[in-house]
Amino acid sequence: MSDRFLVTYHVRAGADTIAARAQAIAVEQSVEMPLDAIEAPEILRDIVGHVADIADLGGGVFAVRIALATATIGGDAAQLLNMLFGNTSLHDDVVLADVEIPPELAASFGGPRHGITGLRRRVAADGRALTCSALKPQGLPAERLAALAVRFADGGVDFIKDDHGLANQAYSPFAARVRACATALRGRKTRYVPSLSGSLDAMRAQLLLAREEGIDTVLVAPLLAGFSTVQALVAGFPDTAFLAHPSLGGASRVAPELLIGKLFRLLGADAVIFPTHGGRFGYTPETCRRLAETARGDLLGLRPALPVPAGGMVLSRVPEILDFYGLDTMLLIGGSLLAARERLTAETAAFTSRVAAHRYR
Amino acid sequence: MSDRFLVTYHVRAGADTIAARAQAIAVEQSVEMPLDAIEAPEILRDIVGHVADIADLGGGVFAVRIALATATIGGDAAQLLNMLFGNTSLHDDVVLADVEIPPELAASFGGPRHGITGLRRRVAADGRALTCSALKPQGLPAERLAALAVRFADGGVDFIKDDHGLANQAYSPFAARVRACATALRGRKTRYVPSLSGSLDAMRAQLLLAREEGIDTVLVAPLLAGFSTVQALVAGFPDTAFLAHPSLGGASRVAPELLIGKLFRLLGADAVIFPTHGGRFGYTPETCRRLAETARGDLLGLRPALPVPAGGMVLSRVPEILDFYGLDTMLLIGGSLLAARERLTAETAAFTSRVAAHRYR
Repeated sequence: MSDRFLVTYHVRAGADTIAARAQAIAVEQSVEMPLDAIEAPEILRDIVGHVADIADLGGGVFAVRIALATATIGGDAAQLLNMLFGNTSLHDDVVLADVEIPPELAASFGGPRHGITGLRRRVAADGRALTCSALKPQGLPAERLAALAVRFADGGVDFIKDDHGLANQAYSPFAARVRACATALRGRKTRYVPSLSGSLDAMRAQLLLAREEGIDTVLVAPLLAGFSTVQALVAGFPDTAFLAHPSLGGASRVAPELLIGKLFRLLGADAVIFPTHGGRFGYTPETCRRLAETARGDLLGLRPALPVPAGGMVLSRVPEILDFYGLDTMLLIGGSLLAARERLTAETAAFTSRVAAHRYR
Repeated sequence: MSDRFLVTYHVRAGADTIAARAQAIAVEQSVEMPLDAIEAPEILRDIVGHVADIADLGGGVFAVRIALATATIGGDAAQLLNMLFGNTSLHDDVVLADVEIPPELAASFGGPRHGITGLRRRVAADGRALTCSALKPQGLPAERLAALAVRFADGGVDFIKDDHGLANQAYSPFAARVRACATALRGRKTRYVPSLSGSLDAMRAQLLLAREEGIDTVLVAPLLAGFSTVQALVAGFPDTAFLAHPSLGGASRVAPELLIGKLFRLLGADAVIFPTHGGRFGYTPETCRRLAETARGDLLGLRPALPVPAGGMVLSRVPEILDFYGLDTMLLIGGSLLAARERLTAETAAFTSRVAAHRYR
């Protein structure tokens, strides 16, 4: 068993203060008390975090690596987040940059249950990137969302997810929405991906209802739901694939490649949605590339998770985005297909055929 | 019913770009799609967020108020957070500054079930501030934590909370810890406040076990647990009082007075722990004062929540802190009492008697 695992923080500090600041983080993220008040030598030896090394990244920022005790996690996903960044998230001179996940944690969390292979199998798509769009705007009744889903499906899209704003509102309650969309798409290859909301109890009831309707893939936002909630759902519904949404991701304080690429995958997300470069959000190409590689690269034997670039994508960028991310990717275009209005199916067909025909550089 | 409620964002922008940026946030936090792609006029009228006003705060920062549709929340706490800051949290030019909570949301969430009065009644303390300390370091076995609790209780402290790092680790599992501490404090006025962790299922089992042991107050970290989890616990255990911990609060992106003072209270936290000025964290005195006033001031008929300043407090600061926060406050001193080691009970007694004897300016 790994007694320790390394956590990397990027810390703004002076060259004369960084050693003390690093030591303070090591204490804050482990025992949170003065070390000279600790009477038990085994706690100082086995539990207190210690500074492994400090590297000057230039520009007043240092990479601090801290070795935390694996025993402090206790196998719970929210507690992992607590030990990584709980109190330190309240300090605005620190970004949580990376974690070397201990193998036994990877084994106990389990990561994606379906991953890229399982998502491809659902829609019988090999040798090309996958495609996705989104049902919106919220406010539409269930039947109109279902009608929209049919038009996307007619255009050949693989997955149609609920907009992450669709919860259990009066205008399209989860049950009515899922029944309407599942009925409308029955017998088709296209998968409808409803968004879970509410407590673990509510989400479980939603998953049972979705399963009755033949749905095998759902959307969840781990930072809204709570990491332990997602951990429980993934373990409790092993036949269901999970797409993770980055809502409330507060990108500037936790490195996106860590949060979305690594931690969401560890939790069991089979696909991870993130705002790609050049869209409405500020992630750089380098961040996006690292995020995608982290999601699907080697990680302690966990299944690869499918990167899903999104957030203001348009049809004209499909070739560029495919060359950037490669084959094991799912492109998500929502608003810009909807903007075609009466031409939505044709625009969706242009999207899906462009993805299918793309020749990778 | 209030169709709309106002959300305030602080946005870094130029005078020439702020109008467009504000409009983009209004769309992102409601329908998240191009408005000209929306075919239904009732969505444009009833669901799309609109910019209410923009005020120049100076220094390149603007206060943008956006009117969101109350119907988009659907009564779920995590969905409230999603609509307030879901995707916009991914933009690092925006801080979520404030929300005018609609009365029907306050009524349906319910806020604190016990509040300041209920916490005072638990420990029969009137006319003075309350006192609190913390069991740590993690790594100690249950019996040693219980022995520590007895020494704090001998010093007369009102509440003894688990360190928020105490979860369900092998070295002091929740059940063993709670039984040991509850047994050790049985018959005393001092309340032991265990920290909940894991999924909603796990937390419910922990609450049932705690209740069997006579415990009536618990600790929970809403950002780790998920807002909907806390909402379900508060509704399901109306006799239990909840202390909220700010772990993972990412203070620089959500105004602390909003997140901890207002939203945690709305969720039902009876007391809210926060890092006070002059300690290990960077909140200013003005932020702390506003946070405390938001937690216990008038808010749509909700019971007041007790402000619990913490985070590096020391005995010598007690008079200053009491004058700053006033009577309806609970002081939380952890590490600095533990640093007294063999004099822990005497130091705790000095703390509690100083609080009891304080004459407010």
